[in-house]
Amino acid sequence: MEWTETLCRETGIRFLTTRPSEIEAASFAIIKEELGQEFLKACPQDQLPVLCRVIHTTADFSYKESLYFSEDAVSKGREALASGIPIITDTTMAASGINKTAAAAHGIQVRCFIGDEDVKEAARESGITRSAVSVDKAARLYPDCIYAVGNAPTALMRLYEKIRTGEIRPRLVVGVPVGFVNVVEAKELILSAGVPCIVARGRKGGSNVAAAICNALLYDRKV
Amino acid sequence: MEWTETLCRETGIRFLTTRPSEIEAASFAIIKEELGQEFLKACPQDQLPVLCRVIHTTADFSYKESLYFSEDAVSKGREALASGIPIITDTTMAASGINKTAAAAHGIQVRCFIGDEDVKEAARESGITRSAVSVDKAARLYPDCIYAVGNAPTALMRLYEKIRTGEIRPRLVVGVPVGFVNVVEAKELILSAGVPCIVARGRKGGSNVAAAICNALLYDRKV
Repeated sequence: MEWTETLCRETGIRFLTTRPSEIEAASFAIIKEELGQEFLKACPQDQLPVLCRVIHTTADFSYKESLYFSEDAVSKGREALASGIPIITDTTMAASGINKTAAAAHGIQVRCFIGDEDVKEAARESGITRSAVSVDKAARLYPDCIYAVGNAPTALMRLYEKIRTGEIRPRLVVGVPVGFVNVVEAKELILSAGVPCIVARGRKGGSNVAAAICNALLYDRKV
Repeated sequence: MEWTETLCRETGIRFLTTRPSEIEAASFAIIKEELGQEFLKACPQDQLPVLCRVIHTTADFSYKESLYFSEDAVSKGREALASGIPIITDTTMAASGINKTAAAAHGIQVRCFIGDEDVKEAARESGITRSAVSVDKAARLYPDCIYAVGNAPTALMRLYEKIRTGEIRPRLVVGVPVGFVNVVEAKELILSAGVPCIVARGRKGGSNVAAAICNALLYDRKV
């Protein structure tokens, strides 16, 4: 594949391509090249587009080691999406990063309850996080859904409790909160909950990563 | 400082704290501890809250080396925000990550034009990215503003052109796009434009990082 080079006359900096249609393809070509042939062959082929999109979003190749997929997580996630069930996110930022055109094509709603007045009030009254209260609300409204958690370990902890009590059974949990407090522990917890999950083990993740994983599943593309 | 430990009886996992008020403080304490006394002393004190918030958002300590501040970028950014000028972002995700309560307290609008119909149409007609067209629109509407770019190197390239021709003179450019195509080059370009800037050199960055930097400037807190 050849790219359209652009030269900045003033500085002499060469830009690979500025054509919208070429930028993403060029990015994925670079990512695959750097992952290397050996890795590309060894990596389960259904997981590869998800991993590549996470690296595309973060420029961080450490996800190669840290991104965990439960058995058939990708096919189960795609199946759930094909049936049009909603995606519930823990932050408006993750919701905002999910491709709405792709979601709409599947008839999928993307919802986030963190800013809802009733959630704020319940969090104030109970002293727990708004993220945990949001899970309670989602569980009431959407017993059948995908959870995408990019920020709040307390959301994963609440999900774990509700899964263990049998109250909910998510079709997929994207568990990629980022941070330093409870993040590693909450991810290990959700891994043991017995539901399909895609989890970035360790401290890293984020709303952008949560959205990227959902988009990779929505796009249903090979890389 | 002491945290309220929570024990998950079923798994034996100890959680540091799940109290909303403690989580952020505990996170920053861990970040500072890992940055180390030597670094904390050497780092310019006005830059430290920005760096810590970026690490808080990414769990990635490599920003310690890559985050570049032009002279007095932090104080110039804070000054601009105090005067209530708008923040223009390249993605809805970055706009969504900026704390609206904090922005409103300064009387600041947060705008993003990427989804506007006129922007889409102009991009289609011209074959350039919507991100670049969005800069054109922002330049028309808000000659005096802060740009926060977390995704699109083409936005930085367009900003550079307009700065060099004297068409605009942003009060601050937050230049932290992420990726593999033109990203490194566009960041080096904006560094040379002669306007106040905060730039994550290299491939890393993101809408989350752009929002984190804006929030750090809005919060005006010590860490």
